[in-house]
Amino acid sequence: MANAADGMNYAPKGKPNPVVKEGEFPFAVIGLDHGHINGQCNGLLEAGATLTKVYDPDPAKVAAFIKSFPQAKAAESKAEILEDDAVKMVAAAAIPNQRGALGCEVMRHGKDYFTDKCPFTTLGQLEEAKKVIAETKQKYMVYFSERLHVESAMFAGELVHDKGAIGKVVQVIGLGPHRLGSGGRPDWFFNREEYGGILTDIGSHQLEQFLYYTGATDAKVLSSAIANYDNPDHPELDDWGQVTVVGDNGATGYHRVDWFTPDGLRSWGDGRLFLLGTEGYIELRKYVDPATETQGGDHVLLVDKKGEHRFQVNGQVGFRFFGELIKDCINRTEIAMTQAHAFKAAELCLQAQAQAVVVATDGGRPAAL
Amino acid sequence: MANAADGMNYAPKGKPNPVVKEGEFPFAVIGLDHGHINGQCNGLLEAGATLTKVYDPDPAKVAAFIKSFPQAKAAESKAEILEDDAVKMVAAAAIPNQRGALGCEVMRHGKDYFTDKCPFTTLGQLEEAKKVIAETKQKYMVYFSERLHVESAMFAGELVHDKGAIGKVVQVIGLGPHRLGSGGRPDWFFNREEYGGILTDIGSHQLEQFLYYTGATDAKVLSSAIANYDNPDHPELDDWGQVTVVGDNGATGYHRVDWFTPDGLRSWGDGRLFLLGTEGYIELRKYVDPATETQGGDHVLLVDKKGEHRFQVNGQVGFRFFGELIKDCINRTEIAMTQAHAFKAAELCLQAQAQAVVVATDGGRPAAL
Repeated sequence: MANAADGMNYAPKGKPNPVVKEGEFPFAVIGLDHGHINGQCNGLLEAGATLTKVYDPDPAKVAAFIKSFPQAKAAESKAEILEDDAVKMVAAAAIPNQRGALGCEVMRHGKDYFTDKCPFTTLGQLEEAKKVIAETKQKYMVYFSERLHVESAMFAGELVHDKGAIGKVVQVIGLGPHRLGSGGRPDWFFNREEYGGILTDIGSHQLEQFLYYTGATDAKVLSSAIANYDNPDHPELDDWGQVTVVGDNGATGYHRVDWFTPDGLRSWGDGRLFLLGTEGYIELRKYVDPATETQGGDHVLLVDKKGEHRFQVNGQVGFRFFGELIKDCINRTEIAMTQAHAFKAAELCLQAQAQAVVVATDGGRPAAL
Repeated sequence: MANAADGMNYAPKGKPNPVVKEGEFPFAVIGLDHGHINGQCNGLLEAGATLTKVYDPDPAKVAAFIKSFPQAKAAESKAEILEDDAVKMVAAAAIPNQRGALGCEVMRHGKDYFTDKCPFTTLGQLEEAKKVIAETKQKYMVYFSERLHVESAMFAGELVHDKGAIGKVVQVIGLGPHRLGSGGRPDWFFNREEYGGILTDIGSHQLEQFLYYTGATDAKVLSSAIANYDNPDHPELDDWGQVTVVGDNGATGYHRVDWFTPDGLRSWGDGRLFLLGTEGYIELRKYVDPATETQGGDHVLLVDKKGEHRFQVNGQVGFRFFGELIKDCINRTEIAMTQAHAFKAAELCLQAQAQAVVVATDGGRPAAL
């Protein structure tokens, strides 16, 4: 197994440097309902953006945010940020069903918008955002963190798209288990209208990856399903969901998301990605290689015609999305991600959620076949 | 004998654990079209059965078989075996679309039948076999080798059903990649009428596992799909297939099968099984732990509330199915497997194949969305 540790031929690129100078790309934050806002800000700051202001109706959330990001000044109101001409972008992690309206408001004030996933909870919100983009020419970008902020996932993109390491990608399988935790979740998390359903919410990471790795620009939901298998106290929570799609290029995707990460796992979730190609396959163990001595995440397993290859790429790839996004905002380009791609991923999730078969309710009551 | 790089001739050997004495359970073999017959015979012999005769119309296949199993006498004709009252069971690995008719003939001669999977290629064959069983009270058992002849799979059954290690099983995901190989496959392998389609064929292992691990006794196919992604020279070959099902207990299954094992993998296939439970999950790496130094197969990963646990169980579990089957035949019981279970698995595969959406043809031409 000499090649099990052979990463020499696939040397990943270094971390991207800041793409702008201090003050060149000021951004502000509105909406602190999801902790992902910290990751969004980290990514932008590492790429050189300048965080100026923060607003949330809850002063406690603002205080906690400023503790992590002391450069941010607490704004008196949302309007103070929206009307600040210096602010080029608003990053936001509002309650999911409020993200669409906030984004439209931000764009109508001449700023780009960078929201936590999921970007929308209804197809109507998506249509409204498309209209506002047509009017304003602003961007409605989405923090699909399970690819954009995971080095193994970024590396897999290089293997597939730049090196053709597995030939043509014919299928993506994504497993996205998450830890529910106990007591730490806000009420909206359990309210279907607010969180949008599991395929809308954490499923959005999955469909984005399907489109990205296969290169499909459109897709059709073949089948989707949701369940409440073990949470009778939260009947509106989908604790499990799956969707299978076929792309316009014939490639398929199967994606499962759930809230069943056991307490004994080191990580919040044993996220996996399997890319099946005509010339080989890739598996990502994104956050943990379970039940081994191996520490850390970002394990990339590649099997091709020549052998079995393994890489652990944390700290070696970086997160180029954020710098590319800043430059896209400045140059009005679409290098980091096209608007069409982000919205197609959103649309597929919403379709999958809307047409999902309910297989179990109220903590495991089987639906009739 | 067990050739780990070649699935067609993969014939595991276990510890002998005879349940009967020499001569107490004589069986014969008819039909040597698939190499699985070697595994079927190994399992029965290790459990104490006595192999008496073999018949195939091709003398070369018979000669090769007798080289491996010198105790078998070449019969002059199929009739010589069928009319031999001493023979209690006929083991067979005929061309798939001939398995049903052969089984009915065997049962009408007062013998039990033990066929390689897939047991049938059409629902009509299944119905006919049900009729003959009703008339004859004989058994039509199936060599679902990817569970019955895999120690990690047998061990997972103990973890789930005897120890309740992961609570209630809510989903099974099975990945069954296989190596196509070059030149070693007979013509029938590429002929749809004869092999039955990928979901009928290697998919049958998968649906059997879904029923077994979830405990469902009935299920509905939610969606299925097939493709010829990369084999334009064999347009009738499905080189990829998937199916998702929901059981009468609400548990779900997703199963992918394919012929894309790359040449660089040590094994004929990186078979995986993921069992998601309300209290934990299990992953099986059945034949290989890819891109690690670890040798051999039968890796069982269990994550529960207490931690992450790993077992490598090859040589430690054995294959109790075969001894149980022999005793079932003698005692007319159903300990090894019920007829209903075997036939439900077959029915689900045939339904999945019949209703499969074709997503790509002729080596990758996408079907219209």
